[in-house]
Parts: sequence; C-alpha cells; structure tokens
Amino acid sequence: MPSEFQLISQYFHRQRQDDSVILGIGDDAALLQIPEKEVLVATTDTFIVGRHCPERTSAYAIGHKALAVNLSDLAAMGARPRWVLLAISLPDSNEDFLREFSAGLFALADEHGVTVVGGDTTKGALSITITALGTVPRQQALTRHGAQVGDGIYVSGTVGDAGLGLQVALGKTVTLTTEQAAYCQARLDFPQPRLSLGLALRGLASACLDISDGLAQDLGHILQLSNVGADLALDQLPLSSPLKTLPPADTWQLALAAGDDYELCFTLSDENFAKLVAVDVPMTRIGTVSQALGLRLFYQGQPQDIDMTGYQHF
Amino acid sequence: MPSEFQLISQYFHRQRQDDSVILGIGDDAALLQIPEKEVLVATTDTFIVGRHCPERTSAYAIGHKALAVNLSDLAAMGARPRWVLLAISLPDSNEDFLREFSAGLFALADEHGVTVVGGDTTKGALSITITALGTVPRQQALTRHGAQVGDGIYVSGTVGDAGLGLQVALGKTVTLTTEQAAYCQARLDFPQPRLSLGLALRGLASACLDISDGLAQDLGHILQLSNVGADLALDQLPLSSPLKTLPPADTWQLALAAGDDYELCFTLSDENFAKLVAVDVPMTRIGTVSQALGLRLFYQGQPQDIDMTGYQHF
Repeated sequence: MPSEFQLISQYFHRQRQDDSVILGIGDDAALLQIPEKEVLVATTDTFIVGRHCPERTSAYAIGHKALAVNLSDLAAMGARPRWVLLAISLPDSNEDFLREFSAGLFALADEHGVTVVGGDTTKGALSITITALGTVPRQQALTRHGAQVGDGIYVSGTVGDAGLGLQVALGKTVTLTTEQAAYCQARLDFPQPRLSLGLALRGLASACLDISDGLAQDLGHILQLSNVGADLALDQLPLSSPLKTLPPADTWQLALAAGDDYELCFTLSDENFAKLVAVDVPMTRIGTVSQALGLRLFYQGQPQDIDMTGYQHF
Repeated sequence: MPSEFQLISQYFHRQRQDDSVILGIGDDAALLQIPEKEVLVATTDTFIVGRHCPERTSAYAIGHKALAVNLSDLAAMGARPRWVLLAISLPDSNEDFLREFSAGLFALADEHGVTVVGGDTTKGALSITITALGTVPRQQALTRHGAQVGDGIYVSGTVGDAGLGLQVALGKTVTLTTEQAAYCQARLDFPQPRLSLGLALRGLASACLDISDGLAQDLGHILQLSNVGADLALDQLPLSSPLKTLPPADTWQLALAAGDDYELCFTLSDENFAKLVAVDVPMTRIGTVSQALGLRLFYQGQPQDIDMTGYQHF
C-alpha cells in the first residue's frame, strides 16, 4: 500500500506557476506572499459524504463540491481566491477515489487560479476539510453587517434547485422529466462559486453572504447583524423551470429553506446597483431592506406565512 | 439539542484583543491583517482520536494536542503564530467534550497569543482539523532544503519520551516508576510547540523541521531536500531519565523512530550557533551534515545498524 508521502505526491503535488507561492507542499508549512495593501481572507469547511452530499455522489463531484463550498465563502467576502489546504481522511488508501476526487478538485481550482499549497492525509472515516485562502483590499471586503434601510435585496442565479436535486437523489417522488432531474442533480453536485460576482460587488454591496443553509435563514444573518428587517416578494424569486413545475408551497419551501445552492445573497443601494458591471450570472432583486425588524414574505402584495427553518447541523 | 450556531458561539467565540483580526468568527470568512514585509505561513493537520492519541486521552489533552501539532509546524518555519481555524466533527452534540476540549485548546492558544478566527462544526466521526496561520519576514523563514555540509545537527529537548508514553498508555510492559510513567504520558499528551526556539533560529538555522514521525525519518527529509547526508552520534541523543532505564536498542528505537515528540530538529553552522540566544528549551548537537548521502549512525565511534522506519499513516 502506498505511504502517505507517495499519496500526497501522486495526487496533490502538482506544479502550478504561481509567483505568490514561495514554498508549497513539501515543507512543514506553506510560505505565501499576500499582495501589497490587501488583507487575508480565510475560511474552513468540512465535507462529509452522506451529510453534505448523498452517499451515491461520485468522487469527482465530491472533489468539486468540497472545494466549491469553500470558494463560495471567499466569493461572499469579495475575495480573490488564491490558495487552499486540503485535509483528507480515508478509511483506506483508495486510489480510484483519490484519482477521481483530485481530478474534480483540480478542475475547479484551475478554473479559478487556485493553488493547493498544503495538506494532510489520514486514515479514518471519509471526511474532507478544506481551508481556502484569498485576498481583498481591506476597505472593499463584503461583510454581513452593513445592510441599509432601502437597499435592494438580490440573489444570483436561481434558488431551490439543489434542494430539488436532493429529493431526486433520495428517490422522493417528484414529477420531473429526465432532463429536469439531471439539471437539479447537477446543481446539487456541482455548485458554482460566484467568484466573478463577488469581485464585481467589491466596494458596492452593503452586505453579502452565500446561501448554504437556505435563503431565509442565511438572509436572517444579514438582517440580524445589520439590525434591519426585510420585505421579500415571493413572486420575484428567481426559479428554474423544474422548480416551477411544483405546487407554489413546495416551490417556496425549497427556494427559501433548502439551501445548498451556493448563490450569493446581497444588499445594494440603487445608486450602487447602477455602478455594477455585468458578470457571468444573472442577479434578481427579490426584496427591500426595511427598518422594521424581521423577515416578511409577500405574494402578489399579500403577506404569507411559511416555515423557513434552514438546515440544522445537529 | 443546541444548534451549530449555539455550539460555535458558546465554546469557540471568545473575545480576544487582537488588532490583526479585522473580522473573526461570524461572517463567511475571517479578514486578517498580515504585518508589513512579512509573508503568510499556513499549515493544516487532522487529529483523530485512537490514531493520533490513545482512545483514553482526555478531551482537554485532545484540545491541547490538536493545536500543538499545528503550532509545532509554524515553529519549524520560524513563524510567529497568529490565527487558527478549527473544523471539528462530532458524533453528537457532546457538551462535556466541547467544554474540556475548548479549555485545552484555548489554554495553549492564549499562551502563544493565537486567536481562533473561524471554524466549522459538523456531525460525523470524531475528528479535528486545525489550520494554523502565522507570519515571518520572507528571508528569515526556516525551510527543509538549506542544510550545508559541515553544519551541526541539533534537536531540542529530549527525544523518545512520547513513544515511551504511548507504550505506557497501551499497557505494554515497561518497568518505570509511577512518576516516570506520568512524565512520559504527559510528553505524549501535552507536546509543547517550540515557538520561542523557532523565532530564535530565524535567519540562523540552515534547515529546520519538527519531529512528528520519528527523528530518523524526519531528518531524512532535510537530508533529501538539501542533497546532503549525516553522521549521527547515538551517544549524544538527548534522553530523559525514563528513557535511560531501557536497554540501549529499545532506547535508540524510540528516540529515532517513535516520533510524536514535536521537538525541533535543525542544522546550524558553528558561526551561527555562536549567534543563537538562549530560549526556554535546551538544544543538543547530535551530529554533523556530510557530503556523503544517507544517514549513518555511530555509538562510541562505531557504526550501528538500526531499523529507523518512522510512522506510516497508511
């Protein structure tokens, strides 16, 4: 069986031209050059198969998604992603898994110019913890606490697709075409971190985060930390065609509470909206920041009462 | 059962005065200020109970050691430790464990001025992955590849104690007094990252690393990356009194191959040795860097042949 050093070397020690990496994998720690006048942005997330994705998820998708959820956190801060550290526990030295996993991970890393600069492989229950490091000019970082009364509330892409994809994966009865089911599963397995949008929002959005636990719960963090409330128009929620096939109550539940979409939710003044450049993902205004605390939902102007409990880890 | 947010808030969200932390726990990622003219040093290590420590290890010791092994990597780079991100998987929301674990972790973090700036709690098999971040002036970082022929080879503290502590913990027959057994178990459970020594070696040591997998295997990394060899004098190995009670062959095996001591091993010219300031841990010269590749062992001037295989993770 190959040793830890062979595993690291074979699957994770790729040469990549990156002047910011003074020293990468192969020493006690990596040495990394932060661009002048920028600050470090750091986040870590653990990915467990059967918990963060269905058991049947391919190793390639696991590699993609374990990295994507971390890059999504950097996107939400307006950071440029630069480096990742990868800690992986495996029950055994499964080379098929490692080959596919690393292919999925490096495809996404390469797409966004991210270098793997360190890691640790351990024998244990399958679990992946990635730490993603990026940089941003200090004054342009996006946080959760700056939403202002009157700002528009926006989301990127569409919401609820990953939740519907999970229902498909778990074999729950949903009446979708084969194409629609495949689309939703792809949204679940291959979330796209909205890094270009995060960069475009730098210095413009008053607050921003990524939707991991459900739009309502995640937006709630912005509202709480900004000490404001919100009015949301359910008829404005950006929905894919598979989601529109469901009864409205199911649609709203998925869109508001299912999470795992890794779209960005952000607040923006009308003045700053006008300054925003187009990026590779659509964005939709779904509501307005209000002085009255709490989150109020409307459909065709009428108040609605919906259970919006997001994902609970314990 | 408390939610993920309550758990994080209750045990890991401590206020600490640290101007370098622009934004800590509570947003998508931390925002961190790197000191001017310094570079980032980053390392990650997973800690699994039953693998990296005996099953009976206290939660307090697990918190200490999971952090210590990461800070030890920063010490080996000559870095000043600054921030950590903590990813913890727990089978259930065990508050007794979390209270003791966080007490052990924060005691060590506070001792070295380290702030916990982010984390993730997940339901899963017990596993802790810590990413430690530090900084160092670029030209003063300690690496593994600069050892020069003629340099002295040094280790800090004593070697082999943790290996002997593991034998005690596993109930293997060893003839130690109660005090000696307790000393070795403490060395196993509470390794001290040699951060002061790492700072003192900045710009002086030609190569440095920490001993995690065994002195012989770890020194081998320095030799390989520096393209040199070494002559070691077994009679010069710094040994604690418990280790000296064993037959010489057992002593050498533990000192050279058991690992887990988290002492520093480094190479230093005689000229730079004279410039070294005293720190809180003794250091001992155990050999000399040679042009002839490979590692040669001597006892009272006579060549010795000893199995020096270090820890294999798979």
